[in-house]
Amino acid sequence: MLELRVIPVRGMGDIKPGDALVDKMLGALRRQRVRLIAGDILVVTHKIVSKAAGRVVPLEQVKASRRARRWAAQHGLRAQVVELALSESRRVVRQGRGVLITETRHGFVCANSGVDLSNVDGGKSAALLPLDPDRAAAKLHRAIKRKLGLFIPIIISDSFGRPWRRGLTEVAIGVTGMRALKDFRGKRDPYGYRLKGTLEAVADELACAAGLMSEKLLGAPVCVVRGYSYQRGRGRARDLIRPRSEDLFR
Amino acid sequence: MLELRVIPVRGMGDIKPGDALVDKMLGALRRQRVRLIAGDILVVTHKIVSKAAGRVVPLEQVKASRRARRWAAQHGLRAQVVELALSESRRVVRQGRGVLITETRHGFVCANSGVDLSNVDGGKSAALLPLDPDRAAAKLHRAIKRKLGLFIPIIISDSFGRPWRRGLTEVAIGVTGMRALKDFRGKRDPYGYRLKGTLEAVADELACAAGLMSEKLLGAPVCVVRGYSYQRGRGRARDLIRPRSEDLFR
Repeated sequence: MLELRVIPVRGMGDIKPGDALVDKMLGALRRQRVRLIAGDILVVTHKIVSKAAGRVVPLEQVKASRRARRWAAQHGLRAQVVELALSESRRVVRQGRGVLITETRHGFVCANSGVDLSNVDGGKSAALLPLDPDRAAAKLHRAIKRKLGLFIPIIISDSFGRPWRRGLTEVAIGVTGMRALKDFRGKRDPYGYRLKGTLEAVADELACAAGLMSEKLLGAPVCVVRGYSYQRGRGRARDLIRPRSEDLFR
Repeated sequence: MLELRVIPVRGMGDIKPGDALVDKMLGALRRQRVRLIAGDILVVTHKIVSKAAGRVVPLEQVKASRRARRWAAQHGLRAQVVELALSESRRVVRQGRGVLITETRHGFVCANSGVDLSNVDGGKSAALLPLDPDRAAAKLHRAIKRKLGLFIPIIISDSFGRPWRRGLTEVAIGVTGMRALKDFRGKRDPYGYRLKGTLEAVADELACAAGLMSEKLLGAPVCVVRGYSYQRGRGRARDLIRPRSEDLFR
C-alpha cells in the first residue's frame, strides 16, 4: 500500500567538531537495522551539521556590544546570545517584546538568526546555523552516494516561528537532490480547474513530518522519510526564500 | 519499530452539501482495507468539510462591490472571488501585487480569506472555509466514536502561504482530541539545558505530513496518521492563532 513512513534514527551519540557525520549516520542506521533504499530522503536537524562543522561558540568567548547588552538587559536575555544573533544577521526585521527577528546572511527570516543553546552543551555554548546549508546537504548526499551507491536527497532542518501562528514548525534550510517546491501551476484539478498559485513547499512539509519524530528531548536528529514521490532535480533551500520583490512583509 | 505512517484515503467520491462526511470516510477506509486503530489521527482537508456543510458559493450569485471590482480589474482577478474574500474577512492585513492577505472571522491570516476555486466544480463556484472548523472537527470525532467506539483526534487542514518563504504548506484550521501545541518549555534537553521558547505546532506539522500524501490532483482528501504519540487533551486550532499582544506582524 502506498504510504509515507518516517523512521527516526537514534543512537548517533554526541557530535563533535570534525566528526564525519555521514559515518555516524550510517553507523546508527546499521545498528538500528534500517537499510536505505532508492526513493528514501534523509532529514537531518541542522544542529548536528553545525556541531560537526564546528559552528559552536562558547558564550564566554563572545564580547557583547553595547547594543546587545542593552537589549539583553531590557528583556532578561543573555547579551552574548544577542550579540551572536546580531552578528549572524544582515538586518533586523523586527525587534519587540524581547523577540529579535532577523534576516540571516543566507536570507532566512527567523528569531535570533537561528542562534540556539538547546542540545549543545547545557547552555555554555551556542550553535550557529551552518554557513551554507545547501552545500552541507550536497556534501552529505555525495558521501552517501560514494559509500552506498544510492541517490538520497538530503534536507537539513531547523525550527522556525511564524507570524500570526503560535508554535515552531520545522523548515528546510538546506536541500539537495530534489526540488524544494512542487509546482502545480497550470495543472488541472479533477474538476478541470486550472490551478494558479499552487506552489507547494514540499521540503518544508518533509521537514515537518520528520520534526514529529525527531523528538527534541530524545535525540533522534535524523529521520528517514520513505514513500514520498519527490521530484528529482536541482533543488536548494534558497529556492524557498521569497524574493524581496514578491514579499509584502519586509 | 517506532515510526510514523501516513496513509492516504482515496475513493471518497464527490462530496455534496448535506453528505454525511463520516460515512463517506469510513466507507472509503473499508474499501481500502484500512482499519482505524487507537492512536490514529485523521487529517481531513477542509474542502470536503466545506462542501458537506454547503459552504460553496456559485460565483454568478455573488454581487461584487465597487471596491472588489476595482481591485480585481487592476490585477486580472475575478471580482466575485475578491468580493467573497473581503466579505469573509474581518480585516485586510496586506494588499499588494495582486495578493490580498486578510484576517478571517476565525482569526486566521491567509490569502483571500481561504476562498478557493480549486477542487470544487471547475471554477464556477468557490469554497469558503468552514464557519467553525474546530466544531466541525469535534463533530467528526464524536461520530467516529459513536460508530467505531474509537477515540480518533481530527485535524482539518488548509494550505496557507507564509511571509518570507515561497510555497504553500498545510496548516491546521480545526483540531479536536489532541493538543495543537506540544509544550517543551521548562523541560531539559539531554545536556541539561532548560528549554525556554519551545512550543511546537504539532497540529500544523501533522497537517504537513498529510499534505505530502493528499495529492491535490489525485483526490486523497483524508489521511490516516499512525504512530504519532500525541498529547490527548482539549486542543483547538484556535490555540494556534497568535494573540494580538504577542504578534509583531499585525
